[in-house]
Amino acid sequence: MHLAAFVTAGPGRPGGWRYPDSVPGWLGAEYYQNIARTLEDGRFDLAFFADILSVPDRFGSSTDSQLRNGALGSLRLDPLHVLTSMGAVTKHLGLAATVSTTYAQPFTVARSFATLDHLTAGRAAWNVVTSFQESEARNFNRDEQFPREKRYERADEFLEVAGKLWDSWEDDALVLDAQAPLFAEPSKVHAIDHKGEWFTVQGPLNVPRPPQGYPVVIQAGASAKGKDFAARWSDVIFCSHASLESAQDFYREIKERAAAHGRDPRQVKILPSIAPVVGPTTEVARQTADLLFDLVPPLGGLSTLAYHLDVDLSTFPLDERLPDVEVPGVEGHYREVREITEREGLTLRELGKQYGGRVEGGFVGTGADVADGLEQWFTEGACDGFMVQAPYQPGGFEDFTRQVVPELQKRGLFRTEYEGATLRENLGLHRSEAGEWSNRAPKQPSAAK
Amino acid sequence: MHLAAFVTAGPGRPGGWRYPDSVPGWLGAEYYQNIARTLEDGRFDLAFFADILSVPDRFGSSTDSQLRNGALGSLRLDPLHVLTSMGAVTKHLGLAATVSTTYAQPFTVARSFATLDHLTAGRAAWNVVTSFQESEARNFNRDEQFPREKRYERADEFLEVAGKLWDSWEDDALVLDAQAPLFAEPSKVHAIDHKGEWFTVQGPLNVPRPPQGYPVVIQAGASAKGKDFAARWSDVIFCSHASLESAQDFYREIKERAAAHGRDPRQVKILPSIAPVVGPTTEVARQTADLLFDLVPPLGGLSTLAYHLDVDLSTFPLDERLPDVEVPGVEGHYREVREITEREGLTLRELGKQYGGRVEGGFVGTGADVADGLEQWFTEGACDGFMVQAPYQPGGFEDFTRQVVPELQKRGLFRTEYEGATLRENLGLHRSEAGEWSNRAPKQPSAAK
Repeated sequence: MHLAAFVTAGPGRPGGWRYPDSVPGWLGAEYYQNIARTLEDGRFDLAFFADILSVPDRFGSSTDSQLRNGALGSLRLDPLHVLTSMGAVTKHLGLAATVSTTYAQPFTVARSFATLDHLTAGRAAWNVVTSFQESEARNFNRDEQFPREKRYERADEFLEVAGKLWDSWEDDALVLDAQAPLFAEPSKVHAIDHKGEWFTVQGPLNVPRPPQGYPVVIQAGASAKGKDFAARWSDVIFCSHASLESAQDFYREIKERAAAHGRDPRQVKILPSIAPVVGPTTEVARQTADLLFDLVPPLGGLSTLAYHLDVDLSTFPLDERLPDVEVPGVEGHYREVREITEREGLTLRELGKQYGGRVEGGFVGTGADVADGLEQWFTEGACDGFMVQAPYQPGGFEDFTRQVVPELQKRGLFRTEYEGATLRENLGLHRSEAGEWSNRAPKQPSAAK
Repeated sequence: MHLAAFVTAGPGRPGGWRYPDSVPGWLGAEYYQNIARTLEDGRFDLAFFADILSVPDRFGSSTDSQLRNGALGSLRLDPLHVLTSMGAVTKHLGLAATVSTTYAQPFTVARSFATLDHLTAGRAAWNVVTSFQESEARNFNRDEQFPREKRYERADEFLEVAGKLWDSWEDDALVLDAQAPLFAEPSKVHAIDHKGEWFTVQGPLNVPRPPQGYPVVIQAGASAKGKDFAARWSDVIFCSHASLESAQDFYREIKERAAAHGRDPRQVKILPSIAPVVGPTTEVARQTADLLFDLVPPLGGLSTLAYHLDVDLSTFPLDERLPDVEVPGVEGHYREVREITEREGLTLRELGKQYGGRVEGGFVGTGADVADGLEQWFTEGACDGFMVQAPYQPGGFEDFTRQVVPELQKRGLFRTEYEGATLRENLGLHRSEAGEWSNRAPKQPSAAK
């Protein structure tokens, strides 16, 4: 079983920042370094940071609700710097940052992750997103964003170029012969001369090939387009499921898609997101979950949901049910919301609270209770491990590490020591050979912009 | 007197990587963290990283000479990550990274430095460059670069937008009242709605105002355009001078230009670059300097010079003098090269070695000898301090810290303890008020692209 931690470089889950034990140290390096030490003590595979390139304004076309409620994206440090800080105090923990292919350049991003991978001796991971908020487009010289189809086309080419740049130094190109002198062997460092629809990049990169070959690639794709992209490129896929059955279906589908792309399905790890609440007794855990639920400002939950669905929920009556809507945003979250709304007959206000305080998979209880749930999902073909959210930061990670991890270890489900030298090795993934990604890029040339 | 260290995230000065004491650990975080500790022990104001967005190919239109000789830019990690690693093991040392305004976006860069400034409690600095190599343009979708005039226009607007983004959260916008709840006061977080010739950025930033207001801004502008830009925007200016007189002229000119922009000239610190070689005796220092000189591969020096001048020097006969040439690159370096060539009657091959192994200002000797030289430059109106290059990394910084710094301290020229809590305070610079940069931006709208 693999464990990733979904850490937030700002206030975490809606209301979590109001929890009495929550330490509002999001602006300082020590806060993240302490989390990193906790996770490494717990033998987590990696720490993961989502990202957003704006303060979302999808609720009432204003950032007010987001800011007032400390809802998702109200404050977000640049995750790459946060990761580097965490890397400085750990030796094994993988370090995953989200970077958008829509608002960055391949040379910059390939270099950034190559640097992180070198500095941390092979622990870098890249969560690839295409961004889907108009407010993000408006911070990057555009009135509106590219349509999803175009964003994924760009992402395919972006990854192809990044792979070429990482391959531009052969593994043994750096010689360092002071006598000769021969610093690097010029015949083993190659221009890439990429000319595509979206990018023209000469190369080579000015950083030698990363220790892992390529950093680990993570993706969360819930749309058909997203799932296909994830199955093509990802080493790790994370997802969100309200039930075991829905997780099992997704697991089967992705593994099949990966095989259809000619990949070994075991080389694609699927980690559903969970937000377990752990306590010394089942009763205490339930009370904690209730308290956390009470702390969720309904409008904070709703503005987070508005962001995820990319729908201005302020235009619907708060005390009626959310009608069926067209969702340009994350389809997986909408599916989940429809399930909850229908099952529990919630008004929009109640849905906001429910969504903000939801505990995917329903893992609330003692360490043994939660381990039972995780064991079931893991052994019944729903996942290869979990993306663990803390209901409140940093305490939630400490609770999980102290109470759930030892249970999983006792059952032989989870490592007691890191197996490998790099993140890829800990995840059971092979080191990427040069040229591997060129084979994964879509064969037909992408359509003109 | 202020001291900055010119650290290289890769092999440093030409030939330095061949020095027996040189530790080729440029790819790991510990290498930089050890340098950071040394510099903080020596009470340096800051560590500074230059940057290049390509492996230069200005010598013979090929990266071969650069790579073979370990010349400038052959290998360069992303300096921002390196800095964050160094910040994790220090408390006072300022952290300066070079980021180009030509190949990045203001939202990304403003957020990146705001994050670094928060994580390090006010120690971030940005060296603003506009990039001048065709090879860099070709890594970012262009066949050729923008002309210098356009690059500086873009840079002016880039800094204006960055300033607006840092100001987009008022200093007291983050409230964190868990009871209310009020995470941030929406009326104190502002969209910037910038619409210019180069950038359209809605804002606000998703990071609160940096501890320093704005990070410290550094610039090295030797052209008329560059000097004007530096006098307008920079807190720190670094430069390169072969003689005291030339440094004094530059010092006077920049201070006058700053005053002409309505700025207090004392709020602009000028740091000439030096590469002192220190030894226990004058004789040992001279022998070390000779050895370092011997280690410079002439073609390594020449390909570094070809980069700086942006001139393909492979087209001139190696055993004749360099004729007068048109120099699109760094004018200051060309001035220096003409001086050396004429004074010493060098062939191009000899010039390559001389340029690669040059010791600006001629500071070679015991700690006391070098301190004499620095004292003279400092007290005779040539500078506010120095940008110290290590002739070889990391030993050169250790030598300087052990042998020169105590001499400077004994003479009352340099601090024995850090005075301030932030880099700005240590440099004697005021904290930037919101809106300060809007007043510095050129008044007339920039010409159309």
